[in-house]
Amino acid sequence: MKELAKTVRKASKQLLKLNKETKDLIFDDLIKGLDSNRKLILEKNQLDLDEAFKNDLNKAMVDRLKLSDERIDDIIKGVKTIKDQPEIVGSFYDEFTNDLGLRVKKQRVPIGVILMIFESRPNVVVDCAALALKSSNAIILKGGKEAKHSNEILGQIIQDSISKYVDKNVVSVLASDSREQLNGLLSLKEEIDVVVPRGGHGLINHIFENAKMPVIAHYQGLCHMYIDSDADIEKAVNLVENAKTQRTGVCNAIETLLIHKDILPKVNDQIAKRLLAKGTELRVDEKFSQATKGDFVAAKDEDWSTEYLDNILSIKTVDSLDEAISHIDEFGSNHSECIVSNNQENCETFLRSVDASCVMVNASTRFNDGGQLGLGAELGISTTKLHAYGPMGVEQMTTSRYVVVGDGQIRS
Amino acid sequence: MKELAKTVRKASKQLLKLNKETKDLIFDDLIKGLDSNRKLILEKNQLDLDEAFKNDLNKAMVDRLKLSDERIDDIIKGVKTIKDQPEIVGSFYDEFTNDLGLRVKKQRVPIGVILMIFESRPNVVVDCAALALKSSNAIILKGGKEAKHSNEILGQIIQDSISKYVDKNVVSVLASDSREQLNGLLSLKEEIDVVVPRGGHGLINHIFENAKMPVIAHYQGLCHMYIDSDADIEKAVNLVENAKTQRTGVCNAIETLLIHKDILPKVNDQIAKRLLAKGTELRVDEKFSQATKGDFVAAKDEDWSTEYLDNILSIKTVDSLDEAISHIDEFGSNHSECIVSNNQENCETFLRSVDASCVMVNASTRFNDGGQLGLGAELGISTTKLHAYGPMGVEQMTTSRYVVVGDGQIRS
Repeated sequence: MKELAKTVRKASKQLLKLNKETKDLIFDDLIKGLDSNRKLILEKNQLDLDEAFKNDLNKAMVDRLKLSDERIDDIIKGVKTIKDQPEIVGSFYDEFTNDLGLRVKKQRVPIGVILMIFESRPNVVVDCAALALKSSNAIILKGGKEAKHSNEILGQIIQDSISKYVDKNVVSVLASDSREQLNGLLSLKEEIDVVVPRGGHGLINHIFENAKMPVIAHYQGLCHMYIDSDADIEKAVNLVENAKTQRTGVCNAIETLLIHKDILPKVNDQIAKRLLAKGTELRVDEKFSQATKGDFVAAKDEDWSTEYLDNILSIKTVDSLDEAISHIDEFGSNHSECIVSNNQENCETFLRSVDASCVMVNASTRFNDGGQLGLGAELGISTTKLHAYGPMGVEQMTTSRYVVVGDGQIRS
Repeated sequence: MKELAKTVRKASKQLLKLNKETKDLIFDDLIKGLDSNRKLILEKNQLDLDEAFKNDLNKAMVDRLKLSDERIDDIIKGVKTIKDQPEIVGSFYDEFTNDLGLRVKKQRVPIGVILMIFESRPNVVVDCAALALKSSNAIILKGGKEAKHSNEILGQIIQDSISKYVDKNVVSVLASDSREQLNGLLSLKEEIDVVVPRGGHGLINHIFENAKMPVIAHYQGLCHMYIDSDADIEKAVNLVENAKTQRTGVCNAIETLLIHKDILPKVNDQIAKRLLAKGTELRVDEKFSQATKGDFVAAKDEDWSTEYLDNILSIKTVDSLDEAISHIDEFGSNHSECIVSNNQENCETFLRSVDASCVMVNASTRFNDGGQLGLGAELGISTTKLHAYGPMGVEQMTTSRYVVVGDGQIRS
């Protein structure tokens, strides 16, 4: 692993010389490569799907793993979006001239070498490789073994499109899945500048315990929506439905709905009806159960700390805004949190008190997404407060240094 | 330690409600407290100095430890500077309204709880406490035991000025110096958001090995100045003198001078004369020694990797710009690096190839400093590339989250 990482580190320096024109050529070659190799990609993906079937992988994972012509179209569209973004690496900002005539400016520069760790979803390989190229970072992509064949072929296509212009090792895809390999990588703080893990509790904890370099975790989304005592009923019901069911199995969907006791009797039946029609399983507290028509599963303690990634919603009645905030403080994962309220003061208290990468007022949590928030494409959504908090796009894959240009100025 | 950190975490939430007016009152009380307790501060400082004398502490450390009326004036001036800075916590930027009418904005929010680890220099306690208050972060300040009494009294004065307004534990000064205490703190990733160590190799390495939370290291400054083949002789000599001798024992002073072989015979005698007049000890390579009048200490291999923090300079002759860049790549500490050159292309190659928090062209490395670069005051100079690279002021002590305000918008 050390040899590989050293090769990537050395290759990364070549990226500093790439201009936009050359990057565009690489992106064009990549798009062509993906388009002309559809058959091969789908064949390799089928090998992973066969394996998944043998290993009885759950439906959600198989769905994330599966590629199709349409999904390849989406991947290509993603590369085009990243290609068309403005070139920000190397750009200057916050310039000023000081009293001595020194020109001081900040400059966006690449981080260097990024280690990305993720599960299933072969599209992540292409998205992240394109983002790395755009931000002039080298990247080591370590996917799960369940996507081994898919990741391998995508890695080859990416390297083929790079190799004419720079050392192809600037994008290195590792398809195996051994813990020794992972731990080996996590110790290489001289060669790797940052590790970006996308995954659940076990993976993220393992990385934090073992990584010797900085970690920007893209941890789970245990997201809440809180319906305040004074909220618009129709909007509240629509928002709950959208935040839970527009797409399940994504990190910015809600897992727990908190309802103020005073508004409970006005929204409970509508919410239950609307969600049950969408096939949502409701796990509810006693107050909700007693107030609402129908039979419901009783929520257990562990429901408040579970990211279902599925069409399941836990519902809890709270006595006050403060209780809602405390619940989020205890169980939230710093991802996306929403208040539905017409009370300006309560909205401000919620905003001030809730710590999450994106806090929403009267809007679906599904909007916490790089595309929706104006970043174009994203590496993922960071739940780490340092460096990048929330969707992480090209800009968040750079750092800023100072450049000082003088004419012989000395300090007195 | 866990109890303390939990107390600080809890206290930190009170800072979210502080407005500028209240902060100003705290700063005023702090200034009064420092001013009216000068005698007591100096008495306590004397206890540390007595101890340092007994323990035969080196001169540079004693100098950093020693307080005086003048230094207390400087500390007070520092607090005033921080008080007068604009209030950026809670401020919004990059606002836009999307197609659906959603208002999207980024907001600067405090990081939360910062653990600061530093050696000697009691003034750091007040500077960092003031920066933490200004950025609405709670801070645990862990200084070296050599400054125990000084840090303790300064911590008391700070807490006295805070306690009228918020829980005084938002600034907690730890005066002991045990490794167990330190390691205990480094394991508390739920309570502490980031650790900022200021120090040398041993301390920084220990922190990286043991910290379970993100680290923003303020590591040593092994800074270089490179005199290119085409450089202005007079400016070059002035810059070398300033970067080495204007103040020794600081991180942004240079340790190694790299001279292009073609310009060597034109600058060597002047540089030697000027530095020897300032009492600088020169440790030079053979080429410099042979070309230059006088007797010099021969540089050893370890000189290239030594941060002297003293009035000593190593000098190496290089055959090319590339050799200079390779030398910096191998021995530099990502702090401050300078090229002295009239050749635009060489300056650009240097800027593109050298990785440091501040890269200078024809300017003294001593300008890599929060005050000089427009930040006002600084917590230190980060050599970590993530989150903050270079001087770390109030802005770098915040993070940014998204705030999305809607009117019931859902995602389709």
